[in-house]
Amino acid sequence: MSSKYKDLKQECYEANMQLNALGLVVYTFGNVSAVDRENSVFAIKPSGVPYEDLKADDIVIVDFDNNIIEGELRPSSDTKTHAYLYKNWPEIGGITHTHSTYAVAWAQSQLDIPIFGTTHADHLTADIPCAPPMADELIEGNYEHNTGIQILDCFKNKNLSYQEVEMVLLGNHGPFAWGKNAAKSVYNSKVLEVVAEMAYLTRQINPNAPRLKDSLIKKHYERKHGKNSYYGQ
Amino acid sequence: MSSKYKDLKQECYEANMQLNALGLVVYTFGNVSAVDRENSVFAIKPSGVPYEDLKADDIVIVDFDNNIIEGELRPSSDTKTHAYLYKNWPEIGGITHTHSTYAVAWAQSQLDIPIFGTTHADHLTADIPCAPPMADELIEGNYEHNTGIQILDCFKNKNLSYQEVEMVLLGNHGPFAWGKNAAKSVYNSKVLEVVAEMAYLTRQINPNAPRLKDSLIKKHYERKHGKNSYYGQ
Amino acid sequence: MSSKYKDLKQECYEANMQLNALGLVVYTFGNVSAVDRENSVFAIKPSGVPYEDLKADDIVIVDFDNNIIEGELRPSSDTKTHAYLYKNWPEIGGITHTHSTYAVAWAQSQLDIPIFGTTHADHLTADIPCAPPMADELIEGNYEHNTGIQILDCFKNKNLSYQEVEMVLLGNHGPFAWGKNAAKSVYNSKVLEVVAEMAYLTRQINPNAPRLKDSLIKKHYERKHGKNSYYGQ
Amino acid sequence: MSSKYKDLKQECYEANMQLNALGLVVYTFGNVSAVDRENSVFAIKPSGVPYEDLKADDIVIVDFDNNIIEGELRPSSDTKTHAYLYKNWPEIGGITHTHSTYAVAWAQSQLDIPIFGTTHADHLTADIPCAPPMADELIEGNYEHNTGIQILDCFKNKNLSYQEVEMVLLGNHGPFAWGKNAAKSVYNSKVLEVVAEMAYLTRQINPNAPRLKDSLIKKHYERKHGKNSYYGQ
Repeated sequence: MSSKYKDLKQECYEANMQLNALGLVVYTFGNVSAVDRENSVFAIKPSGVPYEDLKADDIVIVDFDNNIIEGELRPSSDTKTHAYLYKNWPEIGGITHTHSTYAVAWAQSQLDIPIFGTTHADHLTADIPCAPPMADELIEGNYEHNTGIQILDCFKNKNLSYQEVEMVLLGNHGPFAWGKNAAKSVYNSKVLEVVAEMAYLTRQINPNAPRLKDSLIKKHYERKHGKNSYYGQ
Repeated sequence: MSSKYKDLKQECYEANMQLNALGLVVYTFGNVSAVDRENSVFAIKPSGVPYEDLKADDIVIVDFDNNIIEGELRPSSDTKTHAYLYKNWPEIGGITHTHSTYAVAWAQSQLDIPIFGTTHADHLTADIPCAPPMADELIEGNYEHNTGIQILDCFKNKNLSYQEVEMVLLGNHGPFAWGKNAAKSVYNSKVLEVVAEMAYLTRQINPNAPRLKDSLIKKHYERKHGKNSYYGQ
Repeated sequence: MSSKYKDLKQECYEANMQLNALGLVVYTFGNVSAVDRENSVFAIKPSGVPYEDLKADDIVIVDFDNNIIEGELRPSSDTKTHAYLYKNWPEIGGITHTHSTYAVAWAQSQLDIPIFGTTHADHLTADIPCAPPMADELIEGNYEHNTGIQILDCFKNKNLSYQEVEMVLLGNHGPFAWGKNAAKSVYNSKVLEVVAEMAYLTRQINPNAPRLKDSLIKKHYERKHGKNSYYGQ
Repeated sequence: MSSKYKDLKQECYEANMQLNALGLVVYTFGNVSAVDRENSVFAIKPSGVPYEDLKADDIVIVDFDNNIIEGELRPSSDTKTHAYLYKNWPEIGGITHTHSTYAVAWAQSQLDIPIFGTTHADHLTADIPCAPPMADELIEGNYEHNTGIQILDCFKNKNLSYQEVEMVLLGNHGPFAWGKNAAKSVYNSKVLEVVAEMAYLTRQINPNAPRLKDSLIKKHYERKHGKNSYYGQ
């Protein structure tokens, strides 16, 4: 049962379990994948398996054309979306999809999450984009593949970089987040949920709450990112 | 103390304890039943027993005419509603009733829960129906039996199938959910509560949030249900 | 160290710890007392002692004129309110005061909590009353004693029975609840918090949500209370 | 590895861990410091270290001019704000900064938190002040140092005493709280979050909820503070 993908499966397994521990999923409403760029494959949660039953050995290895390379179980039903993102965004190492509550509420509202404060600006300088629901023919076609296209179209239309904005809402569906590895994509999913709740409460308190001023956006983002960052070790 | 219904009681007991673990009940505000179609009886939680004290042996066996077949304790005060649903809906195997917070809030608002997103569409294609409060004479009569009639009338009036829509709100009261077995009815109760919270937040963010488009409803429901489903193992 | 009030202290201690376990208090923001009618004394939490440090021996015994009968520590700063209620309401056995979140929010809004559903009607048939803030001279005088007077005045003005309505909000302050013993007063405090949250959400969803109809109020209350009740064992 | 600051580090470490246990932070979104007035230094959390990995030995010792006196790790990115407050406010012994949810929502709304009830008045007699966002040149300059100036300016403009009002919101950022020691500053951070949630809910229920009347503010504050206080032991 030895596998050249043992470490990749383990990374993917741990990130999926972290998703559960952080309260971002109930039942099977989410999935995390981790990529192996050298072999052009990724590890992903099997479809519909409850977290309490999940084992590292259950993780499925898939290539970027959605062929199952290793694994007994059917991979996540969202696998084609992951594959499309890995294929088109060479710098990402992990992807997380959830139905976390506040992120879904914004997605169902079909609204970008405005940048209201420094918690948001510590992680990205733009509003968190909400991709519009797909056209009917794309939904009826290769749906999960087209979901990937929809995300890339959204980033192109809004002139966003996937390396700076590591999260997106799919209108009427929910969030996807990514990062340099699977754990970082889970982290970004949690940040998104926290920021989504803060933005929700802010608008309830003050429907006219102003967007964060540019100088604060710049300051906080640069504290954590880029060559002059001074946050962390 | 051996009983031909030992396994049925155990199934019912475990589902009731799951209800508690999922945060869907406080104190004794809920009950789960499990049916044995072969013997035309069901197992149900005894009335007013706290979950921390509940034992599998406490579970009561009742027939579809509300006669106690086995058990020392009085069955749930909602027993007649369960009996009516089992008698009239031959395909269900378990029923759950709770007073979970967001589902009750919608029930108290006397509003159906609109289908706003794919979390909802993954489980049903209709708005979650809210049955109107009963007429006074039905309340003053055989109340819990009439509650069952009220649910069936609601499904008839809205032209819904109990096999596709496995949950309902009772106006000013709270939710009932059902499924192929007791565990599935608890699952549906949790899904209802999650969807109720998401719909609540969505309307707070965007009072004009649109209903999910038909193509997405169809796509997500069919991913999980029917002959071409491809979710799960 | 033996005490004739050992059992009373233990009852009071356990009820206070339950308050903490139910999430109704942070830090020292609450207190429970238990009465001994035979000896006309009650046991109450000492003032300002964190729950994690509380021991049954710390509980203070006080008479209805606020004299300390037994105990090394200063009793709760709200002791005089408890004493006044025990003195004037001979049928109650325990009292709980908290600053639980949703109950406080209604108290700060100076509004009664409308009876919107059966969760509420299972416990009382009236709106949960909110006593108005006291006149300045009563606040500046014997404040905690006058708080008791304010509660009784509220019940007199609204023509309520303390045996049927076992809870009240103090305007701009928070809830008091009582019952046949200390544990039941904690139970009523939790019910109040749950009902307060449900009513909050209901009004957010539907600002015109109607009050529960009289026939349902009567039915649900009488299921649980009175000579024809059929809830519980 | 013995250090003259061993106890100070331990105090700081325990207060930081408490912050995490109280649900006031996710990941590394917060920091606590503890001062040693005799040596004019303070202990502070290292930057970007997750709470699950934090050890007492990781705590960094810094003087009031931001020089690192002891420690292998880089101190919190907010260190200069802590230093400025310690230097200018001689009576404080600990400082806590968080991004707790409701406090951030008010900060993002750029609104003071109105004093609506006695939970608030038990701790301070003023609205919880929200300092406006800084001018661009202060943000672009010595940002964390200027944050300290911004807090002191806010207190001067509103004529507040830092010894009576032990908390502040930074507009579009989040809360700072302080107290006689590190543990008390964490306590005040939790009180702020609780009061922020209560005030949020109050305004949702009743947008015209009145400010607490002066006699109640005075009474509750003086129960807990000053020479005639009678709360606690």
